[in-house]
Amino acid sequence: MKAIILFGHGARDNRWREPFDRLVGLWREQNPNTPVELAFLEMMQPSLEEAVAALVSKDANEIIVVPVFFGQGGHLRNDFPVLLESCQKQFPGVKLSATPAVGEDLAVLQAIVDFGARAL
Amino acid sequence: MKAIILFGHGARDNRWREPFDRLVGLWREQNPNTPVELAFLEMMQPSLEEAVAALVSKDANEIIVVPVFFGQGGHLRNDFPVLLESCQKQFPGVKLSATPAVGEDLAVLQAIVDFGARAL
Repeated sequence: MKAIILFGHGARDNRWREPFDRLVGLWREQNPNTPVELAFLEMMQPSLEEAVAALVSKDANEIIVVPVFFGQGGHLRNDFPVLLESCQKQFPGVKLSATPAVGEDLAVLQAIVDFGARAL
Repeated sequence: MKAIILFGHGARDNRWREPFDRLVGLWREQNPNTPVELAFLEMMQPSLEEAVAALVSKDANEIIVVPVFFGQGGHLRNDFPVLLESCQKQFPGVKLSATPAVGEDLAVLQAIVDFGARAL
Protein backbone atom coordinates (compact mmCIF):
# COMPACT_ATOMS: atom_id res chain seq x y z
CA MET A 1 0.00 0.00 0.00
CA LYS A 2 1.20 3.47 -0.92
CA ALA A 3 1.25 6.26 1.63
CA ILE A 4 2.30 9.88 1.69
CA ILE A 5 4.21 12.14 4.05
CA LEU A 6 3.82 15.91 3.88
CA PHE A 7 7.18 17.14 5.13
CA GLY A 8 7.51 20.69 6.44
CA HIS A 9 10.20 22.74 8.11
CA GLY A 10 8.61 23.19 11.53
CA ALA A 11 8.60 26.28 13.75
CA ARG A 12 8.57 27.24 17.42
CA ASP A 13 5.05 28.68 17.31
CA ASN A 14 2.57 25.83 17.26
CA ARG A 15 0.10 27.90 15.22
CA TRP A 16 2.58 27.69 12.33
CA ARG A 17 1.35 24.17 11.65
CA GLU A 18 -2.28 25.12 11.00
CA PRO A 19 -2.00 24.99 7.18
CA PHE A 20 -0.26 21.62 7.47
CA ASP A 21 -3.16 20.28 9.51
CA ARG A 22 -5.54 21.62 6.85
CA LEU A 23 -3.48 19.88 4.15
CA VAL A 24 -3.87 16.58 5.98
CA GLY A 25 -7.61 17.16 6.29
CA LEU A 26 -7.93 17.85 2.56
CA TRP A 27 -5.79 14.84 1.72
CA ARG A 28 -7.91 12.50 3.88
CA GLU A 29 -11.15 13.75 2.33
CA GLN A 30 -9.87 13.39 -1.22
CA ASN A 31 -7.57 10.37 -1.00
CA PRO A 32 -9.10 8.25 1.77
CA ASN A 33 -7.34 5.09 0.58
CA THR A 34 -3.84 6.57 0.82
CA PRO A 35 -2.73 7.12 4.43
CA VAL A 36 -1.02 10.43 5.12
CA GLU A 37 1.18 11.72 7.92
CA LEU A 38 2.86 15.03 8.56
CA ALA A 39 6.55 15.16 9.41
CA PHE A 40 8.84 18.06 10.30
CA LEU A 41 12.53 18.74 9.87
CA GLU A 42 12.91 20.53 13.18
CA MET A 43 11.10 22.12 16.12
CA MET A 44 7.90 20.10 15.59
CA GLN A 45 6.79 16.51 15.92
CA PRO A 46 6.63 13.96 14.42
CA SER A 47 10.02 13.57 12.82
CA LEU A 48 10.33 11.95 9.40
CA GLU A 49 11.43 8.73 11.10
CA GLU A 50 8.38 8.73 13.36
CA ALA A 51 6.05 9.37 10.43
CA VAL A 52 7.61 6.51 8.44
CA ALA A 53 7.23 4.21 11.45
CA ALA A 54 3.56 5.18 11.81
CA LEU A 55 2.84 4.43 8.15
CA VAL A 56 4.80 1.16 8.17
CA SER A 57 2.68 0.09 11.14
CA LYS A 58 -0.37 0.68 8.89
CA ASP A 59 1.16 -1.69 6.30
CA ALA A 60 2.52 0.93 3.90
CA ASN A 61 5.23 -0.56 1.71
CA GLU A 62 5.78 2.51 -0.48
CA ILE A 63 5.99 6.00 0.96
CA ILE A 64 6.26 9.18 -1.09
CA VAL A 65 7.57 12.19 0.80
CA VAL A 66 6.34 15.57 -0.46
CA PRO A 67 8.52 18.45 0.77
CA VAL A 68 6.13 21.31 1.57
CA PHE A 69 8.82 23.93 1.06
CA PHE A 70 8.94 26.76 -1.45
CA GLY A 71 12.62 26.81 -2.28
CA GLN A 72 15.18 24.07 -2.52
CA GLY A 73 18.00 25.41 -0.38
CA GLY A 74 20.33 23.75 2.11
CA HIS A 75 17.55 21.98 4.02
CA LEU A 76 16.28 20.13 0.97
CA ARG A 77 19.55 19.75 -0.89
CA ASN A 78 21.68 18.64 2.07
CA ASP A 79 19.75 17.74 5.23
CA PHE A 80 16.75 16.03 3.64
CA PRO A 81 18.54 13.43 1.46
CA VAL A 82 20.61 12.33 4.47
CA LEU A 83 17.48 12.03 6.58
CA LEU A 84 15.65 10.10 3.87
CA GLU A 85 18.54 7.70 3.42
CA SER A 86 18.76 7.14 7.16
CA CYS A 87 15.02 6.34 7.29
CA GLN A 88 15.40 3.99 4.34
CA LYS A 89 18.14 2.08 6.20
CA GLN A 90 15.98 1.81 9.30
CA PHE A 91 12.98 0.57 7.34
CA PRO A 92 14.41 -1.63 4.57
CA GLY A 93 11.01 -3.22 3.87
CA VAL A 94 9.45 0.01 2.63
CA LYS A 95 10.32 1.88 -0.55
CA LEU A 96 10.91 5.55 0.25
CA SER A 97 10.97 8.23 -2.43
CA ALA A 98 10.54 11.98 -2.58
CA THR A 99 9.04 14.50 -4.96
CA PRO A 100 10.58 17.90 -5.66
CA ALA A 101 9.51 20.72 -3.34
CA VAL A 102 5.94 21.90 -3.88
CA GLY A 103 7.35 25.32 -4.82
CA GLU A 104 8.67 23.71 -8.02
CA ASP A 105 5.11 23.03 -9.17
CA LEU A 106 3.65 25.55 -11.61
CA ALA A 107 0.09 25.02 -10.36
CA VAL A 108 1.17 25.85 -6.79
CA LEU A 109 2.94 28.99 -8.01
CA GLN A 110 -0.09 29.94 -10.10
CA ALA A 111 -2.35 29.60 -7.05
CA ILE A 112 -0.03 32.00 -5.19
CA VAL A 113 -0.15 34.51 -8.07
CA ASP A 114 -3.96 34.22 -8.14
CA PHE A 115 -4.12 34.83 -4.39
CA GLY A 116 -2.06 38.00 -4.79
CA ALA A 117 -4.14 39.18 -7.74
CA ARG A 118 -7.36 38.79 -5.74
CA ALA A 119 -5.91 41.14 -3.11
CA LEU A 120 -5.52 44.03 -5.58
CA MET B 1 -0.86 53.13 -8.66
CA LYS B 2 -1.08 49.81 -6.82
CA ALA B 3 1.93 47.53 -6.57
CA ILE B 4 2.69 44.21 -4.94
CA ILE B 5 5.54 42.74 -2.94
CA LEU B 6 6.02 38.99 -2.69
CA PHE B 7 7.68 38.58 0.69
CA GLY B 8 9.63 35.41 1.47
CA HIS B 9 11.80 34.18 4.29
CA GLY B 10 15.14 34.03 2.47
CA ALA B 11 17.87 31.38 2.74
CA ARG B 12 21.63 31.05 2.52
CA ASP B 13 21.57 29.01 -0.69
CA ASN B 14 20.80 31.34 -3.59
CA ARG B 15 19.01 28.56 -5.47
CA TRP B 16 16.32 28.72 -2.79
CA ARG B 17 14.94 31.81 -4.50
CA GLU B 18 14.21 30.13 -7.85
CA PRO B 19 10.46 29.67 -7.23
CA PHE B 20 10.27 33.29 -6.10
CA ASP B 21 11.82 34.42 -9.37
CA ARG B 22 9.29 32.26 -11.22
CA LEU B 23 6.47 33.86 -9.23
CA VAL B 24 7.67 37.30 -10.32
CA GLY B 25 7.81 36.14 -13.95
CA LEU B 26 4.25 34.79 -13.78
CA TRP B 27 3.04 37.96 -12.08
CA ARG B 28 4.59 40.22 -14.74
CA GLU B 29 3.07 38.16 -17.57
CA GLN B 30 -0.38 38.16 -16.02
CA ASN B 31 -0.53 41.53 -14.29
CA PRO B 32 1.70 43.76 -16.41
CA ASN B 33 0.12 46.96 -15.09
CA THR B 34 0.84 46.19 -11.44
CA PRO B 35 4.54 46.42 -10.60
CA VAL B 36 5.92 43.64 -8.44
CA GLU B 37 9.05 43.23 -6.35
CA LEU B 38 10.38 40.42 -4.22
CA ALA B 39 11.50 41.09 -0.66
CA PHE B 40 13.04 38.83 1.96
CA LEU B 41 12.98 38.78 5.75
CA GLU B 42 16.57 37.63 6.10
CA MET B 43 19.63 36.25 4.29
CA MET B 44 18.53 37.54 0.84
CA GLN B 45 18.15 40.90 -0.83
CA PRO B 46 16.22 43.09 -1.28
CA SER B 47 14.80 43.82 2.17
CA LEU B 48 11.17 44.88 2.53
CA GLU B 49 12.35 48.47 2.91
CA GLU B 50 14.36 48.31 -0.31
CA ALA B 51 11.44 46.80 -2.22
CA VAL B 52 9.07 49.51 -0.95
CA ALA B 53 11.59 52.19 -1.98
CA ALA B 54 11.89 50.64 -5.47
CA LEU B 55 8.11 50.64 -5.95
CA VAL B 56 7.68 54.16 -4.56
CA SER B 57 10.26 55.32 -7.10
CA LYS B 58 7.94 53.84 -9.77
CA ASP B 59 5.08 56.00 -8.40
CA ALA B 60 3.29 53.29 -6.42
CA ASN B 61 1.07 54.86 -3.79
CA GLU B 62 -0.51 51.64 -2.54
CA ILE B 63 1.54 48.51 -1.89
CA ILE B 64 0.12 45.15 -0.90
CA VAL B 65 2.58 42.75 0.69
CA VAL B 66 1.87 39.04 0.16
CA PRO B 67 3.74 36.84 2.65
CA VAL B 68 4.88 33.78 0.70
CA PHE B 69 5.01 31.63 3.80
CA PHE B 70 3.06 28.50 4.63
CA GLY B 71 2.50 28.98 8.34
CA GLN B 72 1.96 32.05 10.42
CA GLY B 73 4.47 31.60 13.22
CA GLY B 74 6.77 34.03 14.98
CA HIS B 75 8.15 35.57 11.78
CA LEU B 76 4.75 36.63 10.51
CA ARG B 77 3.07 37.28 13.84
CA ASN B 78 5.92 39.21 15.46
CA ASP B 79 8.75 40.27 13.11
CA PHE B 80 6.68 41.14 10.06
CA PRO B 81 4.19 43.62 11.59
CA VAL B 82 7.10 45.54 13.16
CA LEU B 83 8.90 45.63 9.83
CA LEU B 84 5.78 46.72 7.97
CA GLU B 85 5.11 49.51 10.47
CA SER B 86 8.71 50.69 10.22
CA CYS B 87 8.43 50.82 6.41
CA GLN B 88 5.13 52.71 6.68
CA LYS B 89 6.82 55.34 8.88
CA GLN B 90 9.66 55.72 6.41
CA PHE B 91 7.32 56.07 3.45
CA PRO B 92 4.32 58.01 4.76
CA GLY B 93 3.12 58.83 1.22
CA VAL B 94 2.36 55.21 0.35
CA LYS B 95 -0.38 53.02 1.82
CA LEU B 96 1.09 49.70 2.93
CA SER B 97 -1.04 46.67 3.70
CA ALA B 98 -0.56 42.92 3.90
CA THR B 99 -2.56 39.83 3.07
CA PRO B 100 -2.53 36.69 5.21
CA ALA B 101 0.18 34.14 4.39
CA VAL B 102 -0.39 32.28 1.14
CA GLY B 103 -0.61 29.05 3.18
CA GLU B 104 -3.95 30.33 4.52
CA ASP B 105 -5.44 30.16 1.02
CA LEU B 106 -7.50 27.07 0.25
CA ALA B 107 -6.59 27.14 -3.46
CA VAL B 108 -2.87 27.11 -2.61
CA LEU B 109 -3.40 24.18 -0.24
CA GLN B 110 -5.49 22.37 -2.86
CA ALA B 111 -2.71 22.80 -5.43
CA ILE B 112 -0.30 21.18 -2.94
CA VAL B 113 -2.68 18.26 -2.37
CA ASP B 114 -3.07 17.86 -6.14
CA PHE B 115 0.71 17.86 -6.57
CA GLY B 116 1.03 15.08 -4.00
CA ALA B 117 -1.80 13.08 -5.56
CA ARG B 118 -0.13 13.22 -8.98
CA ALA B 119 2.98 11.64 -7.42
CA LEU B 120 1.09 8.50 -6.36
